[in-house]
Amino acid sequence: MKLSNLVGDRFKERPSDCVIESHAFTVRGGYIKNVANGIYSLFPPMKRITRKIEEIIRQEMDAIDGQEVLFPVVLPGSLWEESGRFESVGDELLRFKDRGDAQMVLGMTHEEAAVQLVREYGQTHARYPFMIYQIQTKFRDEARPRAGLIRVREFTMKDAYSFHTSQEDLEAYYARCYDAYHRIFARAGVPEVVAVKSDSGMMGGSVSHEFMLLTDAGEDSIVTCDSCNYSANMEVAENIVDNTGLDASEPLRKVQTPHCKTIEEVVSFLGSRVENSCKAVIYQKNASDEYVVVFLRGDYEVNESKLTNLLGEKIHPAAEPEKGGLVPGFCGPYGNGAKCTFIYDRSLKGIGSLCAGANEEDYHYVGLNLERDLGGVEYVDVAKIQAGGICPCCGRRTVRISRGIEVGNIFQLGTKYTKTMGMTYTDDDGTEKHPIMGCYGIGVGRLAASVCEVRRDDYGPIWPITIAPWQVHLCCMRVDREDCKAAADEICAALERAGIEVLYDDRNVRAGVMFADADLLGVPVRITVGPKNLENGQVELTTRDKRVKELVPREEILEKTQALIAQLFAEIEAHVNDKTYSTEQ
Amino acid sequence: MKLSNLVGDRFKERPSDCVIESHAFTVRGGYIKNVANGIYSLFPPMKRITRKIEEIIRQEMDAIDGQEVLFPVVLPGSLWEESGRFESVGDELLRFKDRGDAQMVLGMTHEEAAVQLVREYGQTHARYPFMIYQIQTKFRDEARPRAGLIRVREFTMKDAYSFHTSQEDLEAYYARCYDAYHRIFARAGVPEVVAVKSDSGMMGGSVSHEFMLLTDAGEDSIVTCDSCNYSANMEVAENIVDNTGLDASEPLRKVQTPHCKTIEEVVSFLGSRVENSCKAVIYQKNASDEYVVVFLRGDYEVNESKLTNLLGEKIHPAAEPEKGGLVPGFCGPYGNGAKCTFIYDRSLKGIGSLCAGANEEDYHYVGLNLERDLGGVEYVDVAKIQAGGICPCCGRRTVRISRGIEVGNIFQLGTKYTKTMGMTYTDDDGTEKHPIMGCYGIGVGRLAASVCEVRRDDYGPIWPITIAPWQVHLCCMRVDREDCKAAADEICAALERAGIEVLYDDRNVRAGVMFADADLLGVPVRITVGPKNLENGQVELTTRDKRVKELVPREEILEKTQALIAQLFAEIEAHVNDKTYSTEQ
Repeated sequence: MKLSNLVGDRFKERPSDCVIESHAFTVRGGYIKNVANGIYSLFPPMKRITRKIEEIIRQEMDAIDGQEVLFPVVLPGSLWEESGRFESVGDELLRFKDRGDAQMVLGMTHEEAAVQLVREYGQTHARYPFMIYQIQTKFRDEARPRAGLIRVREFTMKDAYSFHTSQEDLEAYYARCYDAYHRIFARAGVPEVVAVKSDSGMMGGSVSHEFMLLTDAGEDSIVTCDSCNYSANMEVAENIVDNTGLDASEPLRKVQTPHCKTIEEVVSFLGSRVENSCKAVIYQKNASDEYVVVFLRGDYEVNESKLTNLLGEKIHPAAEPEKGGLVPGFCGPYGNGAKCTFIYDRSLKGIGSLCAGANEEDYHYVGLNLERDLGGVEYVDVAKIQAGGICPCCGRRTVRISRGIEVGNIFQLGTKYTKTMGMTYTDDDGTEKHPIMGCYGIGVGRLAASVCEVRRDDYGPIWPITIAPWQVHLCCMRVDREDCKAAADEICAALERAGIEVLYDDRNVRAGVMFADADLLGVPVRITVGPKNLENGQVELTTRDKRVKELVPREEILEKTQALIAQLFAEIEAHVNDKTYSTEQ
Repeated sequence: MKLSNLVGDRFKERPSDCVIESHAFTVRGGYIKNVANGIYSLFPPMKRITRKIEEIIRQEMDAIDGQEVLFPVVLPGSLWEESGRFESVGDELLRFKDRGDAQMVLGMTHEEAAVQLVREYGQTHARYPFMIYQIQTKFRDEARPRAGLIRVREFTMKDAYSFHTSQEDLEAYYARCYDAYHRIFARAGVPEVVAVKSDSGMMGGSVSHEFMLLTDAGEDSIVTCDSCNYSANMEVAENIVDNTGLDASEPLRKVQTPHCKTIEEVVSFLGSRVENSCKAVIYQKNASDEYVVVFLRGDYEVNESKLTNLLGEKIHPAAEPEKGGLVPGFCGPYGNGAKCTFIYDRSLKGIGSLCAGANEEDYHYVGLNLERDLGGVEYVDVAKIQAGGICPCCGRRTVRISRGIEVGNIFQLGTKYTKTMGMTYTDDDGTEKHPIMGCYGIGVGRLAASVCEVRRDDYGPIWPITIAPWQVHLCCMRVDREDCKAAADEICAALERAGIEVLYDDRNVRAGVMFADADLLGVPVRITVGPKNLENGQVELTTRDKRVKELVPREEILEKTQALIAQLFAEIEAHVNDKTYSTEQ
């Protein structure tokens, strides 16, 4: 393929709306074009990359006995009513009526469609287990799309659904899929993806993992431990608090704390320690408007995901706590007569003497001892884990918090969908049972953009050979010189005959333009044919990541290029079986 | 792949809602499942077929310098407003609002998205011509989906868009694409697809062709000539009428024709010839309700497509002609004072004496001579061509009318979209011009179903080897016998090692069930391992189309199977360059 024919423009100026590098490079390099908010068209280079990623995914899904199917993009609303998600999912589920006034939705995930497809097939136990998957367009009406292909409204996703007759069988398959996911990411050139325990959210089910590519550009917070294998999404990470040495008690008394509404103000005014303070954070339940007050140690923050899971319903920060009989800035557990749900985080447990709001403007209690003064307090875990905190797994103070992009996820769904949608099978003892499901997703475009985010330099992406749009970028530096042009033409033909994917730049442009474009296109192997080297019978062979830079006799270039490509593939292959479920879990 | 693991059910009963065989077979064979009206999920066999078709299409599009891209399924309404189609296209364009109340549509074709993608890239003439294509899900809110995958609402389509700086260049590319289309259909196993001139409809532009697979199950009428190469869609076929011998004139007079409202009744009552009668068909314009009366020879029918094209707007049969001052059953051209558009089909030209309605209940005129009695009549072509009629190309009375399924289409669009959407390029003389476009579509699922419709017997599809879900169907007749099972296992392993796609039926079921399933799955090559033949060291090698049926020594089965597969591929390859634009046009 000649670069002069490649549809799409490359340019130097960084678009002002790009907050992360992969977004800027994919726009500047002619990979994607914005069509509407969070909706993109793909130019040929990105289409080539995503096709290669899809093929890797397909091979790995087939290798774990997956069978490829295709579900519709447009689904009847009635199907989502069966599962209950037509009501329970928010505005990100795009709902509309067709010409016959039938309620339809755009598929954002396909559990319902999967159950609908195999409800009859799966009526007898002998047919289990089985897994079906598709690679298909999905639409999720995100309120805030961002960062190019990282968070979009329309996207291509591989989604897989497995069906089982026992939890053990699901768990065994889940482990196979977990390993397949690590292989997929390694083959896509990012073996450093980590699997973290996560919140199942709207998917339901209990055990789930997210596959995270660690990068500061990520929007997820990931908890890992520097001492052991522990990893979890911040949303679910257990927070361990050591209150040793804080058990000394004092008498309870009320003190005046004028205008001290924040923990910092109170602690500073009283000259006390923040570890001895009790913070109140006030929420309301979305459905009932009922107030919920969370009490926790002053130096911790509420983890709203854990709180939501605990309550079993969605919440939002209270707008006017006064209406619930609460005194903002001075809300505390002792002498609080408000009718609402009080929640005590376990960061308060074992503290002998607390400073807490007195439920009265400008007053706090000091010397509050929850066991002594309130009694019967039940502690739960709703606070955020902190960097340098205690690892829930090994107990050392070696918690690290990183940013990451979620490039895949796997869920043990249980019978949530098969129960609500009435899918049953006859077991070998003749009883009717609901199959147990797992589901497994990978966003194709997001993975492509994520790889770009972590495999780049200042000038553009450095695509791994396995997903690169082309394998070799051939630059003819002087297309106006016959010898140069002839040599480059000949090399291009030889490479293509050997089945190598070549992007051939035979434009009559300055070297600076040529190399800038090559950097933006990020093809891993580059061959430069210039007049000076050619006089010595040589051409230059380099890699986009600058590890290789050598002059090669013209007649050896095919052989050397083949060897270099093979080496790049082998380097990736070496990581493919690095991580397994059994050793990581 | 073991058949016992294949997701999907096969069954004997023909579903009552299936009107054509391909629909019945694809449901009965576990290929597709209905999700909503005109919306299907694909089971693994159909997914495998469509992937192979997509790969054939991709190769042929790449071979004519196409570059694969991806456009969104969900498009902003504003893009369709730019082209004017947001208003002009009917209810089949599904329109809805997103969560931010922005107007969106589901892409049913992507001319607007194609122009949006390359509007900047195509600003200079040196970049032309170029062609981009995608293989993507589309949605068209059909009022009456039918016949399984033949006419659906959601479908996978290959759509290609070419851009040119001259009409000559478009025409040259159009010819390349035309040839590529014939190669695609030949490679998919249906070389008999014919290209016919067609109506451009809502796409705009002038020249267009439909690729038709002739079958009685088709919903299109195709006109071909038994004497020459002429072919056209009924919608556009020119109607040639020979009124030789009908020029004798008579005096005009009004006659009573009580209750004679149809041509048949009048002709029978008067004892005259139908060729000497003038029929009136009354329409109304959709937009203005204005009445349109078409007069044509009594034995012809109105071709509403040609009429719509002539008027430049949509029409419908008039509900209450009386309101327009017309007398239904007695409407005629002479003495008609109604304020409406009168259209004279050329089937009336040269007839000396006509019987026509007198615009008065129970009265007709006879002896009407349009030139003499009305004068200044302008004749147009709005009648349907008839079987046995005159070929517009060679003039012989050898017109044949067939039914067909449209499996692809190509259009010369001109500047319709580039003008309305303001896409321009600077030509080498410095002037700004609008590029000229072509567009080229193939429905993937429809092609799969159409192949099934014409490649089948009473028991199921007979898939061409190039698109078959598997290449070999291996039946182990007695899985309960160790020797039989071991031989079949060994053959399966040997075939798979050789890269052959095998569907292996090792179920313990009756031979009837096994063969019925194999017939429904339509895999072209079958190997049957049975105990009796095995005693002689033989297995049976057959083809689904029954042309081959031989006993093969067990140790030769791999070699023989490879040879048979190669032969089946070669038979298809032999037709690939049968038809070319230059010889057909």
